[in-house]
Amino acid sequence: KKTYKICCLPGDGIGPEIIAEGKKVLAAVGKRYGVDFQCEDALIGGAAIDACGDPLPEETLAAARASDAVLLASVGGPKWDSTDPAAPRPEQGLLRIRKELGLYTNLRPVQIFAALADASTLRPEVIDGVDMMIVRELTGGLYFGKRERFYEEPGAGAAGAPGQRAYDTLEYREYEIERIARQAFEAARKRRGKVSSVDKANVLETSRMWREIVHRIGAAEYPDVELEDVLVDNAAMQLISRPADFDVVVTENMFGDILSDEAAQITGSLGMLASASLGDGVALYEPSHGSAPDIAGQGVANPLAQILSVEMMLRYSFNMGEAADAVRAAVTAVLDEGWRTRDIADASTPADRILGTAAMGDEVAKRI
Amino acid sequence: KKTYKICCLPGDGIGPEIIAEGKKVLAAVGKRYGVDFQCEDALIGGAAIDACGDPLPEETLAAARASDAVLLASVGGPKWDSTDPAAPRPEQGLLRIRKELGLYTNLRPVQIFAALADASTLRPEVIDGVDMMIVRELTGGLYFGKRERFYEEPGAGAAGAPGQRAYDTLEYREYEIERIARQAFEAARKRRGKVSSVDKANVLETSRMWREIVHRIGAAEYPDVELEDVLVDNAAMQLISRPADFDVVVTENMFGDILSDEAAQITGSLGMLASASLGDGVALYEPSHGSAPDIAGQGVANPLAQILSVEMMLRYSFNMGEAADAVRAAVTAVLDEGWRTRDIADASTPADRILGTAAMGDEVAKRI
Ligand SMILES: CC(C)[C@H](C(=O)O)[C@@H](O)C(=O)O
Ligand SMILES: CC(C)[C@H](C(=O)O)[C@@H](O)C(=O)O
Repeated sequence: KKTYKICCLPGDGIGPEIIAEGKKVLAAVGKRYGVDFQCEDALIGGAAIDACGDPLPEETLAAARASDAVLLASVGGPKWDSTDPAAPRPEQGLLRIRKELGLYTNLRPVQIFAALADASTLRPEVIDGVDMMIVRELTGGLYFGKRERFYEEPGAGAAGAPGQRAYDTLEYREYEIERIARQAFEAARKRRGKVSSVDKANVLETSRMWREIVHRIGAAEYPDVELEDVLVDNAAMQLISRPADFDVVVTENMFGDILSDEAAQITGSLGMLASASLGDGVALYEPSHGSAPDIAGQGVANPLAQILSVEMMLRYSFNMGEAADAVRAAVTAVLDEGWRTRDIADASTPADRILGTAAMGDEVAKRI
Repeated sequence: KKTYKICCLPGDGIGPEIIAEGKKVLAAVGKRYGVDFQCEDALIGGAAIDACGDPLPEETLAAARASDAVLLASVGGPKWDSTDPAAPRPEQGLLRIRKELGLYTNLRPVQIFAALADASTLRPEVIDGVDMMIVRELTGGLYFGKRERFYEEPGAGAAGAPGQRAYDTLEYREYEIERIARQAFEAARKRRGKVSSVDKANVLETSRMWREIVHRIGAAEYPDVELEDVLVDNAAMQLISRPADFDVVVTENMFGDILSDEAAQITGSLGMLASASLGDGVALYEPSHGSAPDIAGQGVANPLAQILSVEMMLRYSFNMGEAADAVRAAVTAVLDEGWRTRDIADASTPADRILGTAAMGDEVAKRI
């Protein structure tokens, strides 16, 4: 019997509640497909800061490295919010694990579940057929460049004013752009054959380099894939005006953070979207949404994005396409039968169809 | 008779066509209100590169400085697109004039014209009541920080790979954040009393500094204004899920570029939105849209955003509130009577109500 070790990182807020449902579904998959998924929890984020002052303790990193895949829930919350540069922050745990595991590719599929099409604030005819894959570079750019804050003496400021000064650095190297471009072109080949590369080449030097390299890789290695350039401000508009036209969208880290959340919101059901962070070794899977501290501990959080991150794990880390399809089919069936968590319910949902976190996990698990 | 000198910068693409309509409306206003607007054209952008190799010639800058206000149309086009760091680019003209004139505040009002409410791809009930003011910092951040591209020897890259490396710098000083924060709070006082400050404080040092300073100014000088922090990824979502809840949105240059275009697209009529760039001296007014090279020279471009930038000029540079109201009323009346340019027409627009650029300008001018 095949055995896989899964490093589970519950994190903060609703994290512990939703990851329990991810494990439940993994167990159901293991039973049905004869695989032994061994889940072990480790600390990350605010929970890790509280326990040992470090958002990514050494043991957690070691456990992640020793695993076959990492399942993360969510990190962060107002408890640890601070603008003090020296204070440890939950998000550092997430950023560090991405960097340490070399997870340079973030895949964020954006799709509409037919049963939830009404949840979008966009008109139905506009979101009809939306099916895109956002490929976000995840270990470079402003997230990992040098940053600093210091105090300038009176007179040093451009306006003669004394005060603080801070900078962050947006930096990329050629090989970082080459490898993310290849990921985007490969994804497009398995989809509708089109890549939209998003940059701000009319202003940024990194963007001009990005554009050159993406075109060189495209022309040399993927002449069969259509490639278009879109300026980031324009992309923010087109995601709203013609979302269904996008197939694969590839962009640098910060633009990807903004645009992938915008694209997720277009579906109206952020609670349904998962992401995969891939590198050359062990990969990490997480929901696209955050830790929702306002509803933590109430048992009402939607576990479906976490469950769909398990789907992605099965597909990308374990090559278990059939099992992944089964997870997706189970989620679709549950929705089609009218079951909802609070966030995806609307005025027409009968009260007895609104489930808590665990009950929703049960419904999915029993259909595997 | 009062005399004002207006420096007009037609720029590229549809620029020359739409600025002609802006002047037409200015002339009508001058006649009605007894003011002499003296318009003089100067070169900027691609047109200036073609004429003398410089996207912002010295004479243009001198003319702008000597004027009472600058009316800009649009710059840029595929003709001058290049990823060569050494090639002159039209956008440099725009960025340089912003910097040289110290135009650190970019005001972008986002409103819905009742007659065009159907143009939005968002559901009518979601955009109902949308009325926000985006206050974008315009002379700092990634747009003006140090940037460079160079070649690294084999072995120098993190992955041992040789190749290019590039960086851009996101930098802010305390006084830059203080002054834009004040602009936002002042705007909020004249509106619904709420400021949403957008940053990425969980990652960027500049954002943590931004957040501290905005709160300090708010608490000390504007305790009557409500202040909330929104992370930029979250803001990109909320603009789609609850756009009507925003009053004043204040953010740094690059986030402002992305979010103001996203917000503009929410209205569905980008061709209707203008912006004002203000500093301590002469101010600049321009449409929010670009140079639309694909329809340049055809006489079909929508001049209304340019005309509404004249409205903003009257209001902010000349304190002519009544005249500004008259321009807005004229635009509203033209729309209410069913006149459209092609971009804002829909299937229900009778063919004889679709006007070209000049005819649309005439309709507005004659109602002043
Ligand atoms: C929590 C935060 C640091 C993170 C990011 O910005 O990458 C999150 O928004 C995400 O998109 O995964
Ligand atoms: C043309 C470009 C440099 C400019 C910018 O990014 O500021 C434009 O998009 C704008 O928003 O005015």
